[in-house]
Parts: sequence; structure tokens; C-alpha cells
Amino acid sequence: MNIPHLLQQLHGGEARGVARAISLVEDQLPGAEQLLAGLDRQRIEKVLILGLTGPPGAGKSTLTGELVGVLRRQDIRVGIIAIDPSSPISGGALLGDRIRMMQHALDPDVVIRSMATRGRLGGLCGSAGAAARIMAASGCRVVILETVGIGQSEMDIVRLADLTALVLAPGFGDDIQAMKAGILEVADLLVVNKADQAGARRLQLDMGTVFSDPGDREDRICATVASEGAGIETLMERIFFFEQLYRQDGRLQERRRRSFTLETLDWATEMVKARLQEKMKTPRFECVEPRQAALELVRGLVNEKVNYKKI
Amino acid sequence: MNIPHLLQQLHGGEARGVARAISLVEDQLPGAEQLLAGLDRQRIEKVLILGLTGPPGAGKSTLTGELVGVLRRQDIRVGIIAIDPSSPISGGALLGDRIRMMQHALDPDVVIRSMATRGRLGGLCGSAGAAARIMAASGCRVVILETVGIGQSEMDIVRLADLTALVLAPGFGDDIQAMKAGILEVADLLVVNKADQAGARRLQLDMGTVFSDPGDREDRICATVASEGAGIETLMERIFFFEQLYRQDGRLQERRRRSFTLETLDWATEMVKARLQEKMKTPRFECVEPRQAALELVRGLVNEKVNYKKI
Repeated sequence: MNIPHLLQQLHGGEARGVARAISLVEDQLPGAEQLLAGLDRQRIEKVLILGLTGPPGAGKSTLTGELVGVLRRQDIRVGIIAIDPSSPISGGALLGDRIRMMQHALDPDVVIRSMATRGRLGGLCGSAGAAARIMAASGCRVVILETVGIGQSEMDIVRLADLTALVLAPGFGDDIQAMKAGILEVADLLVVNKADQAGARRLQLDMGTVFSDPGDREDRICATVASEGAGIETLMERIFFFEQLYRQDGRLQERRRRSFTLETLDWATEMVKARLQEKMKTPRFECVEPRQAALELVRGLVNEKVNYKKI
Repeated sequence: MNIPHLLQQLHGGEARGVARAISLVEDQLPGAEQLLAGLDRQRIEKVLILGLTGPPGAGKSTLTGELVGVLRRQDIRVGIIAIDPSSPISGGALLGDRIRMMQHALDPDVVIRSMATRGRLGGLCGSAGAAARIMAASGCRVVILETVGIGQSEMDIVRLADLTALVLAPGFGDDIQAMKAGILEVADLLVVNKADQAGARRLQLDMGTVFSDPGDREDRICATVASEGAGIETLMERIFFFEQLYRQDGRLQERRRRSFTLETLDWATEMVKARLQEKMKTPRFECVEPRQAALELVRGLVNEKVNYKKI
């Protein structure tokens, strides 16, 4: 593949160039390194990677659609990376949600990419991070990383974001109580969506107890009715407010370093895993227990020179 | 730790011995290999590892409790490994469910172990597999592996089971339609729980379309009302029926081999990952892109002799 040409295409904002570049990296094809190294670093510096997570049914995708609407009215180019847990047991809702985003499907300044967590060769964390930078290099000022915050692998993805909004809605009952302890670990902003429904006020008060500082309570909790577009502009303002704050106090840069580490480890693990899987195809283990077999396997690997370009 | 003594304790069925043995392996402490190699292979051969999965709210934990009740009335010792996704966003419901199992908490022939997917050092897949064998060696004839079938990492765990039942309930709407394609990949039996609720009949008919063979439709779909104990004995009979079938036609043995491979790879990956993480603590990368950094990291690892006993 002609990488300089592909870089030119994507830096020019061509949707097809962006899509091909992401596939190149995702499929770990030759040229992936050259492509990634050639991305416009200034645009990557400027992008906001916004994590959007929450349980199924909270209205994340509708909210994403509305946030994109607000940004597009300000002529801001947006990328969306939708992480699909795609387990046979939860795959359903997401497909439907995705269709609702089709309102932006014809807009050349809305770049949408779905990524499945299932049956993957490469590391999802690494691929999603790279996709965000490719979108940034193509001119996106904001990249929304949408995940269903349910499984562990999905939660890890959120850690790639510069800033994360957790979307909740009334009707999750007592589960919300048990969630509270973990919320601050992942979320910078709490969105109480479906704020016109019964229980929304109570949920908002409940969430208030997460923050000890009354100022935080005010600034970090947003009420929205995404299905009617209510509260979305305020939410977007808050997001940009915290982005500026985090850029100034160094938190954003710190998170980018953490994200670099996560992605590196993810790629490295995948590379080694591919090699381990290869080695396992020739079974020659006398072990009755997997842990013993693993020890032998790993000993075999690190004593061996491997051409990792091939992976 | 005195491993022969610990083996004696757990083979004698002592709950404390079982718990200590599982912790030893989970925490990857010295002696883990010796312990695993010393487990009673005949009991491991005979155990049925039963996967139980499904979306939150389908009633898995109530069903588990009822299945345990049926088995205990037949004087069968049971192990339960409950995999807790423990993401901040979904942790709630599980805790509550777990408490409901306390009805069996005082029974010395019901061995219960919770495992969290979050913030782990060792591989969950490897630990869960080892725990199942430790429980088997302690005399459990059945080990139930309960997971919430929502995220990718949780789904992987199900692949450790000899036989898997997918628990569904009415009220999941259109999501069920989209799930159908993936069901046969994971489930040997479909349990339509809450069969007394509206929509149960429709769900059952819907699930029928998953199987092309009318005999399968009859044998592999079970209706239950776990909260009232209805349908549980029939379900347990079906489970044992398929266990026998799979033992005879070699499917069970084949799945054990697959599970051996999965666990080995999981342990090996974790061992290498720990080493990679260690190496990353001394940052000396000039790379701007994580994938490049990962290549350097992996090249450094495989050219180096590492004492893996230490991990």
C-alpha cells in the first residue's frame, strides 16, 4: 500500500482514507507503523478524546447523536468510535442504537467507526487508540469513544479517553447504589439522561453524594433529555470547560501518557500472544496442568529469537 | 506452605483447604504447580463443569441456588464459581444475587468461590479452570461456573465449561432477536426462566427457531420458574443427559482439550504481560506511537533470558 498517498488522503479529510488507514492498523498490515508515525502530531495534540460510557439503555447513542449535532452546528468535525461488546448475549441493543446515528451518516465531517471486541486478532485498546489519532489527524477536533460500560475489557477502553462522561438514567434501581463507589474511578462528568422521567431528581441527588465538593456537584452532574435534545449544549460546554481545565493543570497530558502505556502494553501483549498461539499449535506438552504448560511455553519463547515484523 | 498437607485437606473435602488451595493458585504463590500436579485426576475426570450464563436480570443466581438444592437432595457435592464482572457500572446486581445463595452457605458440601474480573494480577481464565479442578478434587461431582454473559472477557470464561446453559427471561424485547445468531456458539441448553411471565411462550417459540432439528428444540430448551423451583429437576436431568451424551461421543473430551489450550494461553499471556509491565516501568522509548514502542518492547523481551519462576 502507498502509505504517503494514504496519509495525504486522510490529512485531507477524505473519509475513505480514514477508513482504510484504520483498517490497516486494525489488521496489523505492513505499513501500519509508517502510517502511524506519519500522522499530524499537532492535530493529535489538539484533539479531545471524549469517553462516553454507561449501562445499556441509558441512552448513550442518542446522546452521542445529539452531541454530534451540537458540534456540527459549530462546524466542528467529529469522529465516533463505537466499541461493540458484540457478545452473543448483549449484541442486540447496539445494532439498533447505531442505526439511530445514521442521521449523521451522510455528513462528510462525521467519521464513524465501529469496533468489535469479539474474535479479534489485534488488541482492541491499541486499535481504538490508533483510530482516535487517525481521526484527529484527519481534522476531527473531538473524537467520541462510545462504550457500553459493562464488562472489564470495555471498561479498559474508557481509560484511553482524555475525559469521560458516564451516562445514567432513572430506573436502574438499587444497582446505582452499588455503582457509586466505582464511579469516580472512570467518570469526570455524570450525565443524568431521561431527566424528564420519574426518579431522575432522586438519581441526581444520589449522584451528588459521590462528590464531596459542592462545586463539583454543580459542575460535574448534567441533566439531559437526549431524545428531545434538552441539556445537550450545556453538557458540551461543560465538557469543553473541563478539557481546558485539564489541559492547564496537566491532567490531560498525564492521561495521554497513561493511555500511551496502556496501548503499548496492549499491542505488545497481542504480539506475544500471537506468537504463543503459534507455538501451541505443535503440542508437545507432557503436562497435566495448564499452568505448568504455560511455564514451559513462556520459557521456550523468551529463549528464542523471533522476527516480530512478521506478526 | 506445606503442599502435601494442603492436598490432604482438600482431598478430604475440607472447605478451608479448598479455599486456601484456590487462593494459592490465584495469587500465583510458590507451590501452585506442585499443588495442581498433585490433584486427584480421577475426580477431575469425573466432574461436570457446568457453565451458566445470561444477561443480568434473567435469574441466573436464583437458578443456581435451585440447581444446587436439587443436587444436594441427591447427596451430590457441588462447587460454584461465580465470576463477577465487577465493573463499576455493573457491579451492583451481582452482590445482591450472591446473598441469595447464602441458603447453601452453611452446607459443607457446597463450595462457593467468587472471582472478580477486575484489577487482577493472574489470568482469570486460568484461575477459574484451576479452581474448578481443585473443587473437583475435593469431591465435587458438579462445578457450576456462573458468569454474566455481557462482556467479551466474561464470555471467554464460558468456554472453560463442559456444557453451558444460557439463561433467558421474557422482557428483553428485540435484543433477543439479535442474540439468536450467537447463541449456538456458546449454549448447549437454553433455559427460558420466569416462564410464568407474559412473553415466555413467545420467547420459547422464538428460541425454537435457533435449532433446525425438532428433537433439539424439544431437548435443549427448558422452561423454569426458578423463584418457585419449577422445572429445575427436569433441567438437571437434561444437563446430566447431555453430559452422558457428550462423554460418549467425545465432545466433552474435546472441550477439555480446548479448555486446556485456553487456560495455558491465559497463564502464559499473564506471565509475559507481567514481565512486559515490569520492563515498561523504565521508560526509555523515543517512539511517538504505542505500536512502535510495543515492537521494541517485545524485541527486548524475547532476546532476554528471564527467570519465570519469579513471576
